[in-house]
Amino acid sequence: MKPPSSPSDPLFGPLFGSPAVDPELDDRAWLRAMLDVERALAAAQARTELVPAEAAAAIAAATMAAAEAIDPAGLGRDALAAGNPVVPLVRELTALLPPSATPYLHLGATSQDILDTAACLVAARSLRPILADLAAVADQCARLAEAHRHTLMAGRTLTQQALPTTFGLKCAGWLVAVCEASGTLARVRDTRLAVQFGGAAGTLAALGDAGPRVTAGLAEELGLAEPALPWHTNRTRVAELAGALGVASGVLAKIALDVSLLAQTEVAEVAEAAGGGSSAMPHKQNPVRAVLVTAATRRVPGLVATVLSGMAQEHERAAGAWHAEWPTLTDLLRLVGGAAGHARHLLTGLRVDAARMRHNLDASAGLLLAEHVAARLAPALGRTAAHDLVARLSRDAATAGRPLRDALLADPAVRAKLGPTEIDEILDPAGYLGSASEFVDRALALHRDAGRP
Amino acid sequence: MKPPSSPSDPLFGPLFGSPAVDPELDDRAWLRAMLDVERALAAAQARTELVPAEAAAAIAAATMAAAEAIDPAGLGRDALAAGNPVVPLVRELTALLPPSATPYLHLGATSQDILDTAACLVAARSLRPILADLAAVADQCARLAEAHRHTLMAGRTLTQQALPTTFGLKCAGWLVAVCEASGTLARVRDTRLAVQFGGAAGTLAALGDAGPRVTAGLAEELGLAEPALPWHTNRTRVAELAGALGVASGVLAKIALDVSLLAQTEVAEVAEAAGGGSSAMPHKQNPVRAVLVTAATRRVPGLVATVLSGMAQEHERAAGAWHAEWPTLTDLLRLVGGAAGHARHLLTGLRVDAARMRHNLDASAGLLLAEHVAARLAPALGRTAAHDLVARLSRDAATAGRPLRDALLADPAVRAKLGPTEIDEILDPAGYLGSASEFVDRALALHRDAGRP
Amino acid sequence: MKPPSSPSDPLFGPLFGSPAVDPELDDRAWLRAMLDVERALAAAQARTELVPAEAAAAIAAATMAAAEAIDPAGLGRDALAAGNPVVPLVRELTALLPPSATPYLHLGATSQDILDTAACLVAARSLRPILADLAAVADQCARLAEAHRHTLMAGRTLTQQALPTTFGLKCAGWLVAVCEASGTLARVRDTRLAVQFGGAAGTLAALGDAGPRVTAGLAEELGLAEPALPWHTNRTRVAELAGALGVASGVLAKIALDVSLLAQTEVAEVAEAAGGGSSAMPHKQNPVRAVLVTAATRRVPGLVATVLSGMAQEHERAAGAWHAEWPTLTDLLRLVGGAAGHARHLLTGLRVDAARMRHNLDASAGLLLAEHVAARLAPALGRTAAHDLVARLSRDAATAGRPLRDALLADPAVRAKLGPTEIDEILDPAGYLGSASEFVDRALALHRDAGRP
Amino acid sequence: MKPPSSPSDPLFGPLFGSPAVDPELDDRAWLRAMLDVERALAAAQARTELVPAEAAAAIAAATMAAAEAIDPAGLGRDALAAGNPVVPLVRELTALLPPSATPYLHLGATSQDILDTAACLVAARSLRPILADLAAVADQCARLAEAHRHTLMAGRTLTQQALPTTFGLKCAGWLVAVCEASGTLARVRDTRLAVQFGGAAGTLAALGDAGPRVTAGLAEELGLAEPALPWHTNRTRVAELAGALGVASGVLAKIALDVSLLAQTEVAEVAEAAGGGSSAMPHKQNPVRAVLVTAATRRVPGLVATVLSGMAQEHERAAGAWHAEWPTLTDLLRLVGGAAGHARHLLTGLRVDAARMRHNLDASAGLLLAEHVAARLAPALGRTAAHDLVARLSRDAATAGRPLRDALLADPAVRAKLGPTEIDEILDPAGYLGSASEFVDRALALHRDAGRP
Repeated sequence: MKPPSSPSDPLFGPLFGSPAVDPELDDRAWLRAMLDVERALAAAQARTELVPAEAAAAIAAATMAAAEAIDPAGLGRDALAAGNPVVPLVRELTALLPPSATPYLHLGATSQDILDTAACLVAARSLRPILADLAAVADQCARLAEAHRHTLMAGRTLTQQALPTTFGLKCAGWLVAVCEASGTLARVRDTRLAVQFGGAAGTLAALGDAGPRVTAGLAEELGLAEPALPWHTNRTRVAELAGALGVASGVLAKIALDVSLLAQTEVAEVAEAAGGGSSAMPHKQNPVRAVLVTAATRRVPGLVATVLSGMAQEHERAAGAWHAEWPTLTDLLRLVGGAAGHARHLLTGLRVDAARMRHNLDASAGLLLAEHVAARLAPALGRTAAHDLVARLSRDAATAGRPLRDALLADPAVRAKLGPTEIDEILDPAGYLGSASEFVDRALALHRDAGRP
Repeated sequence: MKPPSSPSDPLFGPLFGSPAVDPELDDRAWLRAMLDVERALAAAQARTELVPAEAAAAIAAATMAAAEAIDPAGLGRDALAAGNPVVPLVRELTALLPPSATPYLHLGATSQDILDTAACLVAARSLRPILADLAAVADQCARLAEAHRHTLMAGRTLTQQALPTTFGLKCAGWLVAVCEASGTLARVRDTRLAVQFGGAAGTLAALGDAGPRVTAGLAEELGLAEPALPWHTNRTRVAELAGALGVASGVLAKIALDVSLLAQTEVAEVAEAAGGGSSAMPHKQNPVRAVLVTAATRRVPGLVATVLSGMAQEHERAAGAWHAEWPTLTDLLRLVGGAAGHARHLLTGLRVDAARMRHNLDASAGLLLAEHVAARLAPALGRTAAHDLVARLSRDAATAGRPLRDALLADPAVRAKLGPTEIDEILDPAGYLGSASEFVDRALALHRDAGRP
Repeated sequence: MKPPSSPSDPLFGPLFGSPAVDPELDDRAWLRAMLDVERALAAAQARTELVPAEAAAAIAAATMAAAEAIDPAGLGRDALAAGNPVVPLVRELTALLPPSATPYLHLGATSQDILDTAACLVAARSLRPILADLAAVADQCARLAEAHRHTLMAGRTLTQQALPTTFGLKCAGWLVAVCEASGTLARVRDTRLAVQFGGAAGTLAALGDAGPRVTAGLAEELGLAEPALPWHTNRTRVAELAGALGVASGVLAKIALDVSLLAQTEVAEVAEAAGGGSSAMPHKQNPVRAVLVTAATRRVPGLVATVLSGMAQEHERAAGAWHAEWPTLTDLLRLVGGAAGHARHLLTGLRVDAARMRHNLDASAGLLLAEHVAARLAPALGRTAAHDLVARLSRDAATAGRPLRDALLADPAVRAKLGPTEIDEILDPAGYLGSASEFVDRALALHRDAGRP
Repeated sequence: MKPPSSPSDPLFGPLFGSPAVDPELDDRAWLRAMLDVERALAAAQARTELVPAEAAAAIAAATMAAAEAIDPAGLGRDALAAGNPVVPLVRELTALLPPSATPYLHLGATSQDILDTAACLVAARSLRPILADLAAVADQCARLAEAHRHTLMAGRTLTQQALPTTFGLKCAGWLVAVCEASGTLARVRDTRLAVQFGGAAGTLAALGDAGPRVTAGLAEELGLAEPALPWHTNRTRVAELAGALGVASGVLAKIALDVSLLAQTEVAEVAEAAGGGSSAMPHKQNPVRAVLVTAATRRVPGLVATVLSGMAQEHERAAGAWHAEWPTLTDLLRLVGGAAGHARHLLTGLRVDAARMRHNLDASAGLLLAEHVAARLAPALGRTAAHDLVARLSRDAATAGRPLRDALLADPAVRAKLGPTEIDEILDPAGYLGSASEFVDRALALHRDAGRP
């Protein structure tokens, strides 16, 4: 019977994490990863005949038993003396071994070898559900981009309605960003999460000249990359992971921000499937998932900065900066996992109110098409004259609170060039979308390609 | 029987936290604080006759029961629907009340009222042991400053030995910084940790005009400050707390850095009482407490930045930035608590090797006193000539690997002005300490004053 | 003729800075401050008879001449050799002195003494216009709070309309935050910006026992605080300044965010006096000042984190972390100056559309008052029954798209308790504002008190 | 005659920047880049026949003239009205055009199209010298790794001497990190720096369906990547660049930290070619370049966090977060440029004192080889017994202050297994280096491969 994991932060944790990712990051997941490394190390050393096969088997059995027998909280308490949990872990594992096998446990390794490799395992294991959730987010973006390819809405810049666009193009923009962020994250996972094996000072002195072969075997055992050198104080791998998580976080934050803004009472173009309701105020639909994505992603940039500023690590092994990586990396993975999970729910159930989008677009009564009108008058009137004329008519219409169409129809200079049908055609937002639809196609193609092996 | 708290992060937590502070920050501590706020709110409303005394008593009893009956992990799971744990908390509390009291629970309050006030309670409660540990750190600095007022050592600038100083003065510098940081933190606790009470939109509309009186009563019940206005989206209080924690963290980081550098094998001027030893290498005394202070404090600046960048909160209540404060603030308090606790241990048991300090100081064979020699020759030779002469003799001595004293004694121009006794007096580092001792006195006085009520 | 300053970043600088503050922060301002420190040091030493009066006078004259004669860019280039600009500055100043005065320049000082004191001078001088702009921002908030004390608008939480409030109360909330941030900033300026004087290793050895008296004189000369000890590697003062700037930045960011949201096309409740217009789209009024406040304040939290993480400075003087403070502090002051200046313009010219606020508030057709209705029915029906009834009627009204008033009037249970007049009174948002007006009074009182000496 | 650039921050700039990189980042460099974009846009549109060839030629000529005629400071001042410098730039450019060409300037573009593309150009242009300096840093690391492949030194962990290593391996570790960071940075430059072209709302509406072809032409003209979609509010490209710069910064910071620590007076294993000397203290050799690398790199993580937290950009174009990117990105490039330049100088002139390294290694009188002794006794005595025996002898030797060799020779149990020659061989640090030399080979191979096209 496997003892239950202690969820980290049971009260606030569920708001910031995800049920799919959190179990890959808790204390038992870290314990399991450290045990896997000790097991794999003995196995790799058995392959190179540094360790007898029976000893490796005994170590494998002990790590199996230890996964249930060892209490992470006890390790945590005992970690204080040496400054890391590997020292007490090796002690407890040793107690589970037959005497003949004890010389072969943790052979030639230093605590950081175990912890760094475990960190890469934990990262790789949690990235599986994270990338799955990001893929689902991308699928939802693609679904919405396709479904709303022709759903007209106001394009907004610097908080102001600017030109017509489509909701499909907005979702295509999200899609491209998610694909890019996922691609980078997958690349970091596949190529940069590596085993660490250097021994006390990075020379693997205790193994004679067998070190590199053991490292290669360890990498094979664990499915992680094999580094050219130990990287005890070369933290590019950790920093690249943090950076890729930071980018993914930013991409999700942008989607959540857009949804929050579109869900505002006065805009009301989208709503969450299960908005945080209020029985007294049935119109109130808090965009809870968007709020939670925002909350999780806001915590990420500071953590990335912590990792980056911790890259300056002293000599052969660092006095503090390395230690600060463990919880920081765990938090980064948890928060991006939470944000991805919430975003997936958010988009899966997103209610899109195309009529409201059209309503908001039409509220400016044609002014968003003023640029189009001027462009159509330019060949005849000259660019500047056309522009000035339309600007004046727009201003007048806005001041008078009447549609631009009326102002155009009433102006002799315009009417000399454009008939009512042409004016209606020019003022049709569906006719002024440029490459919106092609851009949707491109985003969908990119998504299809991203899905290919 | 009170159910055990779930320590947040059982594996790595003990390395970064403190047994004195962590229990004030875990899920049960937050639950207890939220329940205290609900109880105090009813009590304050009973005083203003908005709530019958029996209802307030029933609510008080229910919050007592709930502290044991309610599972924080359950609240955490149920928090997802509304985006915060207060909504399910009120539901569970209601179930513990007699029907007659239910209308009076949470009266006129919004979730943020409860959570912000609870956050201030949690902060105030965890600051008690944090400030106690900081006071102990200051006491240790004072003890060392006094004890080592005359312990000579090399003053070091930009990594190079520069001039003589005393270990007492170094500790006096730490002391002043700790007193300043503690003073600021205590001031923030006493004046800026406040109750929050504004109702759904900050008007306290549901209470008619009774709101401000209830706020005053709530502040009295809980021993927190009474704000002029609700501060739902005015986060100066939270940001000042974060800033003060950031400063305290930086002060502790500086002490740990100095200890780490002084404990280097090649310097060896201090050692921790219980350095992380290695049975195979008895000379190895890892400065574990210094490492853990460094690790904890490195995580702080990014968290302060998260709080500061979260101050831009929308309208009457924010959509995410507020939520990100809860775990960030908890982490900040935990890390400063951990750093203070480790620093206290570090300094309490610090082993100071005065002989080694003197040895390292003497290793430059008088060169650190060259400035002093030149100053004493200046009246006779002129400043520039004196300086140039001493510079030349110093260079020669360094190149030849012989003491500056020999070079001075062998130089006729020097000998025309200074006899051997004078030269020895000038080269005595104890005679070139300027105001070091007075600075120690000043720091000790500042510490005594800081301790006064 | 004073040579012109080189504005730092001429292209983007004006967007992020302020014409009132930038000149206090550029290269000439730093040069002037360093020269002032050298002058004041000689003057303070003349008072204690370490320096002849004529030498001090010559030094004062040389610093006057140097302010124009010395090219900051040249200093900058020459700073590379020693790692700071004070070394070449002293060399250039020496060349401007009569030989008799040269021994008395920079007497007993180290480069950091000059630069730290200059930094405090630069901060103090730039805080004058910054605090003036913050005071103007507060005045504008007070003006708007008073003027719009009765201007009804929708209170918004988590992006959704929630309850009625007033624009006056919103401005009162801004006002309190600005007063708090300004107060803290002024306190830091008045009590924490201090002279630095410690000599090469913080002992003031070169001055015998005269050091502290010189420090006191230096403080008096420059109008800065006198520290108990040199603070070469105790960076609490710098960190507190950075923290206070961070809080001020956050307060301004919140105002800008609210304005941006209220200025959205679909909300349109406020507009900037001179919004970034577009001749083709007369309805477009980019809230440019709000955008620039947002841009400036977004850069601040990372800079505060840089200062905080730089507090761990080695031994007696640091090897890099100190150097990183100069441009970081300059940027912090410039950005808060820019944000304050833009916010002042923003609020001074803010166009408030009270009719539009009322329109948006009424758009929910009474639903924002549902809580009020339920509260009024509760005494008769019981709280739960009243709540359920109103919730059902609200939902029905929302679904049917008709006003809540109609639903209430049509319901027999409601009508049994409430007549049309009472219903109208209950549904009047002006009657459900709780303590909004009292809160405005409190904020205005706090502002008046803040203005007093 | 080209007007001189205004160096940004003439006083402190040279300390933090680099003469090779700074000119690619100043106001004139940005102006030149914006003009290049306007020129290239017209050229690309001429290819697609949207613009007459003569107009494109006129625009090209005007941008050439403008590079000298336009004052960036004037643009900066005029940028305030619209919130960016492109609006006044287009106005000034228009004034330089013949009337017939004016309709074709900036055709279909929005300010962000110009600025984002210019930012990518500025980044690409400044990355050329940055990558050149990083390549030189790598070359120096390779040179040192090769030259010091057999230079013995103490490996140090958590500030304590731990095991022998070589200076060559330390440099090989730096080398791998620099190659990794450079590779990532080059990849970002080559694949992620892209043109931006979307028009006001990202649809390229003003170009009908010709938009994508123009984008492709623009990319070709400027040698930047062609994006699938406009990326006005998809900031992955900017964030990846910031992240890659953050990693490069951390790699350089690690080198500088190691040099600072090795240059300490008490360690003295390396010195800078031109240390910041002091004529009075000839032994003092401040590691100025290391200090400056440290200073520059400490400012980077906060800036990366600013970019990441700015990824959440509203709708089709953002209200502030985008603006904050310009100076932040400029600072990031400048600081990494400065750090790379200083690091290149640092390593090129690094003075390595192999004798001192050996001296420091020998100071522990064999204790660093205790692990080796125990390993050699283990087959005969059993691992635990061997370990305990050596631990006891090591402790005794350390306490008595005599070499471990003596203690080993005096112990009967040891002598029963090992003769003096064997003991000397075991205690020879050159015999306990594990794979150090192979790791040097691997790093050099990786460096050779990185240099290949």
